[in-house]
Amino acid sequence: MIDSREEAAALDAEDPLGAFRERFVIDPDVVYLDGNSLGCLPRATVGRLDRSVAQWGERGVRGWDEGWLDLPLEVGDRLGAAALGAAPGQTAVGDSTTVCFYKLVCSALDARPDRSEIVTDLDNFPTDRYVLEGVARARGLRLVWLDGDPETVTSVIGPETALVTFSHVSYRSARIADIAQVNSIVRDAGALMLWDLSHSAGSVPLSLDGDDAELAVGCTYKYLNGGPGAPAYMYVRHGLQAELHQPIWGWLGRRDPFEMAPGYESADGMRAFLSGTPPVLALAAVDEGVRLVAEAGIDRIRTKGIALTELAISLADEYGIHVASPRDPARRGAHVALAHPAARALCARLIERGVIADFRRPDVIRFGFSPLTTRFVDVWDGVDALRELLVTAGWTRGSA
Amino acid sequence: MIDSREEAAALDAEDPLGAFRERFVIDPDVVYLDGNSLGCLPRATVGRLDRSVAQWGERGVRGWDEGWLDLPLEVGDRLGAAALGAAPGQTAVGDSTTVCFYKLVCSALDARPDRSEIVTDLDNFPTDRYVLEGVARARGLRLVWLDGDPETVTSVIGPETALVTFSHVSYRSARIADIAQVNSIVRDAGALMLWDLSHSAGSVPLSLDGDDAELAVGCTYKYLNGGPGAPAYMYVRHGLQAELHQPIWGWLGRRDPFEMAPGYESADGMRAFLSGTPPVLALAAVDEGVRLVAEAGIDRIRTKGIALTELAISLADEYGIHVASPRDPARRGAHVALAHPAARALCARLIERGVIADFRRPDVIRFGFSPLTTRFVDVWDGVDALRELLVTAGWTRGSA
Repeated sequence: MIDSREEAAALDAEDPLGAFRERFVIDPDVVYLDGNSLGCLPRATVGRLDRSVAQWGERGVRGWDEGWLDLPLEVGDRLGAAALGAAPGQTAVGDSTTVCFYKLVCSALDARPDRSEIVTDLDNFPTDRYVLEGVARARGLRLVWLDGDPETVTSVIGPETALVTFSHVSYRSARIADIAQVNSIVRDAGALMLWDLSHSAGSVPLSLDGDDAELAVGCTYKYLNGGPGAPAYMYVRHGLQAELHQPIWGWLGRRDPFEMAPGYESADGMRAFLSGTPPVLALAAVDEGVRLVAEAGIDRIRTKGIALTELAISLADEYGIHVASPRDPARRGAHVALAHPAARALCARLIERGVIADFRRPDVIRFGFSPLTTRFVDVWDGVDALRELLVTAGWTRGSA
Repeated sequence: MIDSREEAAALDAEDPLGAFRERFVIDPDVVYLDGNSLGCLPRATVGRLDRSVAQWGERGVRGWDEGWLDLPLEVGDRLGAAALGAAPGQTAVGDSTTVCFYKLVCSALDARPDRSEIVTDLDNFPTDRYVLEGVARARGLRLVWLDGDPETVTSVIGPETALVTFSHVSYRSARIADIAQVNSIVRDAGALMLWDLSHSAGSVPLSLDGDDAELAVGCTYKYLNGGPGAPAYMYVRHGLQAELHQPIWGWLGRRDPFEMAPGYESADGMRAFLSGTPPVLALAAVDEGVRLVAEAGIDRIRTKGIALTELAISLADEYGIHVASPRDPARRGAHVALAHPAARALCARLIERGVIADFRRPDVIRFGFSPLTTRFVDVWDGVDALRELLVTAGWTRGSA
């Protein structure tokens, strides 16, 4: 616990990751606490995009033979090593998170054709919930909504369960699910398990291989700083790649795509999970974000993420602001949910004051801390601005 | 017909679109005849990407409220007006061509649930063929392969036909299908028609609204110069938008996506056909390519495209090279297919000599002419290089 902005500044001065902030473009006029929604722009990305655009200009179609075609798996492998705990050959980047999620959901369901149920939780990220609704309706499957933490999946899983899918870190509360424990439960029930890592990869260490994970997807524009609408990734465990077949059979998932031969024949390995032409410029941007995470090291990122959220929670406690995230740092990602009945209005006011946070219905203000860019003084300033708003409005400790 | 490179240069000097070449980054050391595979880099795109990247850096997540969220439909409308003959509200940009095609295929099949057949042609673009194979297998439908031109679809269409899909311009021969005629045949049979415009949009005028088109997709990295792996577009006729439902229910296709509310409720209009988070930087690049086509005017582009292909064909004829594209310019897109048994080896040699063409199995060399960047001297140089190779190899007129 600290008592002044100066003490927060002192923590920044000692921060072993402090120098990374200079590696990003930062608006000096705002307190940016939304890197969990859209991460900041790495300075290296500016140059990398310039080079990628120049390569398009200079090399044209020859670029496909000069590295472009390898980007989805090359960047995937780098991401796997830097942030996912995944050995090479299991991660591919391309398509939106929604499309990647759809592809792996369909792949899993096709591998359990005799089962009729999909399990997810009520608090899962919206696009995941919507995809599941659509797929369940199209296939006549039952979508079972767990009203509880992922570890309580035992209460709803059964012999009809084909697929279970949860977010690793909850997009609202930041609660971390126990991947290994849930994987074990789901495997024992004979179902497949698909994780959404959008709110964890790049902020919380993952050990997909070590935790016997089977399938995962995630976005790259949050803690991986890949840019607005950057392509997402899919992880498919080695042992499952031959068994699973994704539904969108495109030319990039075919053996020898440029042969353009008759008849789809799936490529080997993760390439089989690709569909259309890889988004070259976007993949280059993702690569730079991933390289920064690799350089900083996910363990150091995690240590700072815990320190930032601990500070925010201690300040919120002092100011009487309700904390809706887990208090155990081991069970909490890199953002903090602060609950208030007037959260929507408060969040709008914060943004007017230059504190960029976001509102999540019905009553949550999210303060996202991106350890490579967020300083301890940003945490101080953000929570202090909220305190001031509450005082101004006459909402003092306990009155909310 | 011209007899010298000087005469070709004279045609360039008179070309009303000649100045557009300066608006692109061009490698001066090659003869780039592959704009039908990957279009050149517009100079405006360099600046636009710089600004879009800067906006990410400066505005962060606020960018979503400052235009990013509108890009898929805004760029779509601009594309519709510039190149598709589509009134606003019917075109959306996002996802790869493969994913867009998959989404509209599934949408159409769901709208004809009592029919069991999909029709396409053997020579359709590979990714379309592969998607159809996958969908047909997943749904237990019969895939009917037309061995002939799209207008002969009457020979295979029937009461079981749910969906017909062809490319408007053949990726190999450049043959143009008669959209209005085929639409009429398919509509009379009670099926839905889906066009792939990848090899026509930006080079051949389209009148989707006027020709009673129902569904279309296309890529933006060929004649629209959107960049390697640029996002594709979907066209859904106004009258069909409420009836059709795409299969990948993501948050961007939902009403009020940032409410993140329970239960998918489809947005109105073309927004319902979106799935995941829009690729902001890539959409900005597409926008610049589309703006150039709009500025040049599709009719002027078409006029020059015909002149370029006419010149190539006249030279090929003189040199005894077999032309595998239609001789009627009204039935031919902006590339020319030259057939030779040694096409694969010849194409590799051409590229070594700096003539960037491409090979399409089994025996075609494609010379693609992008009217905004290709000069008449490029046509001369390309065909002349092929002539030289044939002479060197002892393949003279008729010997192939």
